[in-house]
Amino acid sequence: MDALGREAVVARRVLAASAGEQRNRALHAMAAALRAQQSHVLAANERDVAAATQAGLGKAALDRLSLDGTRVEAMARGVEEIAALPDPISAVIAEWTRPNGLRIQRVRVPLGVIGIVYESRPNVTCDAGALCLKSANAAILRGGSESHHSSTAIHECLVAGLRAASLPDACIQLVPTTDRAAVGMMLAGLDGAVDVIVPRGGKSLIARVQQEARVPVIGHLEGICHVYVDKAANLEMARAIVLNAKLRRTGVCGAAETLLVDTAAEHTHLAPLVRALLDAGCEVRGDVATRAVDARVVPASEQDWHTEYLDAILSVRLVDGVDGAIEHIARYGSDHTESIVTDDAATAERFLGRVDSAIVLHNASTQFADGGEFGMGAEIGISTDRFHARGPVGVEQLTSYKYVVRGSGQTRP
Amino acid sequence: MDALGREAVVARRVLAASAGEQRNRALHAMAAALRAQQSHVLAANERDVAAATQAGLGKAALDRLSLDGTRVEAMARGVEEIAALPDPISAVIAEWTRPNGLRIQRVRVPLGVIGIVYESRPNVTCDAGALCLKSANAAILRGGSESHHSSTAIHECLVAGLRAASLPDACIQLVPTTDRAAVGMMLAGLDGAVDVIVPRGGKSLIARVQQEARVPVIGHLEGICHVYVDKAANLEMARAIVLNAKLRRTGVCGAAETLLVDTAAEHTHLAPLVRALLDAGCEVRGDVATRAVDARVVPASEQDWHTEYLDAILSVRLVDGVDGAIEHIARYGSDHTESIVTDDAATAERFLGRVDSAIVLHNASTQFADGGEFGMGAEIGISTDRFHARGPVGVEQLTSYKYVVRGSGQTRP
Repeated sequence: MDALGREAVVARRVLAASAGEQRNRALHAMAAALRAQQSHVLAANERDVAAATQAGLGKAALDRLSLDGTRVEAMARGVEEIAALPDPISAVIAEWTRPNGLRIQRVRVPLGVIGIVYESRPNVTCDAGALCLKSANAAILRGGSESHHSSTAIHECLVAGLRAASLPDACIQLVPTTDRAAVGMMLAGLDGAVDVIVPRGGKSLIARVQQEARVPVIGHLEGICHVYVDKAANLEMARAIVLNAKLRRTGVCGAAETLLVDTAAEHTHLAPLVRALLDAGCEVRGDVATRAVDARVVPASEQDWHTEYLDAILSVRLVDGVDGAIEHIARYGSDHTESIVTDDAATAERFLGRVDSAIVLHNASTQFADGGEFGMGAEIGISTDRFHARGPVGVEQLTSYKYVVRGSGQTRP
Repeated sequence: MDALGREAVVARRVLAASAGEQRNRALHAMAAALRAQQSHVLAANERDVAAATQAGLGKAALDRLSLDGTRVEAMARGVEEIAALPDPISAVIAEWTRPNGLRIQRVRVPLGVIGIVYESRPNVTCDAGALCLKSANAAILRGGSESHHSSTAIHECLVAGLRAASLPDACIQLVPTTDRAAVGMMLAGLDGAVDVIVPRGGKSLIARVQQEARVPVIGHLEGICHVYVDKAANLEMARAIVLNAKLRRTGVCGAAETLLVDTAAEHTHLAPLVRALLDAGCEVRGDVATRAVDARVVPASEQDWHTEYLDAILSVRLVDGVDGAIEHIARYGSDHTESIVTDDAATAERFLGRVDSAIVLHNASTQFADGGEFGMGAEIGISTDRFHARGPVGVEQLTSYKYVVRGSGQTRP
């Protein structure tokens, strides 16, 4: 592992000095290799899926692990889309001249070496490797053991792309899953080699990373997202947004987990919203008022307000206007994404200003919490941290900056 | 301590919703209180200085601890300068509209609760408190025990300012130094209350923070700053820059610690530079070539290249051109601030591009490494991290951002 770290540090310096055009060349060659090696990747994936099936892996996990031609093609196209993004490196973010004539520029630079620890989604090998390369960072990837053969085959395609552009293999390294101590060593920073850790996975992985990491983490905790329907909400709009926020995809972090309805809208909005959810096949766990609407509503416990279901389940309660919603979210939310539905502009602004989440929306679905939907291109996750990156983490968020100062002999008085 | 954390979390929410004008009003009232209470502050400081003298505190530490009328006035003026800075909060950093009509804004918000751990410079109480308030962060200050009475008296002035602007006292809290466990609890995050730790002090404090902190740190490690004099350097400019970079103030982190001279300039630049330093009273520790210049030069050991002297001592050696300088800095530098002196534009660009430090300068003194000199106003330190903030840490660097999205009923397909 230490050798891996040392090679990453060398590769990082090569990348920091590389042109964006060279990195894009590698990305296009990676996409080509993924397509050319598709049958090899799928054969490797079959071995993983067979072993996982025998080991009794759950259905959802098996689905995340499984590849087919469409998914490999989607990976290749994803890499090409990353190549098409503007080069984040060397961009001048700001510049100004001081009264003494010093010209100061703030210039974007890579973070350095990024360690990515993930579970058994083989496409993360590809996405994360490509995002790191685009942002000129060296990547050390450590995937779950269930996806070992798939990740190895995908990684071979990435290395083929690096070679085609004359970049060192060590720009994207894959840690053998046989090395059980590897994750701990990565979290400890590999003797100073790792600059940042990005975990991708479920709660237990994230908890371990938060606990053990001795280097900065771009974290992604729970998404307990809320929709608040105000008394001044258009009912049709509210219904469309609530259904979409909860049910478009239930397993994503931007899915709504709690619906808050203005007490003043109890008799106008609550029943139609709850029935629409129930009729769409969603389980509703409600407070007293919500249970009074329909016999299918089950009681919500205190724990429900703290729960990220990632399933077709929604907790529903009345709150005392926008301030009640703000209070509830401050107490139970996870600072991820919250939406208000209202036609009252002042109420909307109060919510947008006071709710302290990475993403706050007015009259739009929480499922827009996504780097692609924000127009930022591919993302490595949604950060619920306040430090460094917040919200979608795309190539720009994988960079740092430095100050370049040009003078003509200035000394400081 | 837990009560302190809880109160900070409440204050943080008040601050996040406060207007910049209200915070500025508090800052002006703080400056007025410092002036009105000057004799009280000086009396408290006398008690600290007397106790520290008796305890045998060193001369430099005593100087850092001591206040007089001029220093109190400088603190008051510093607070007024912070008030005069633009409000960093609620500023829209970027905005764009998506094809589906969603209007996305990236808006600056406070970090939250900042824990500041420092040693016995009483002015840090004032500077750090004011910078946190300007950026709408709640501050928990923990200073060294030697400055306890001074910090308490200064803190009273800050609280008077908060009250004058109807802001809660808990916006700036001072931890009693009698509580020995307080630093450890702050570094552990006070049960989730602390968002960021900013250490201000010497190596042992920083090392402890890096070791123990369970929350993000805006760190400030060593400043082993280099000046590289290229063969194409104007000798007069090089002499002025080297003398200024080393000797203007030797105790600041932007002071140069190593001079690198191009081998090709050995016979033109080395001797005049070394003699100018020696004649100005600087100890020079050199390699073989440097020792050949003057009998007063003492031999440099391997350890010298790793050393931040913070004193009138400079290590000097020849390097093989700009690439030799880049190599030396990559090996021994601390990623803080480095300067190249040359009239060759291409050589300068190579250095500015390849040296991976927070600040790189061309034809200017390393002593410009300072938020004030950058036009950013007061700073809380110079970050040598790559994560979140790099270089001078002023009010903008004490902020995060969130995304505010305004729609008209959009749902995600």
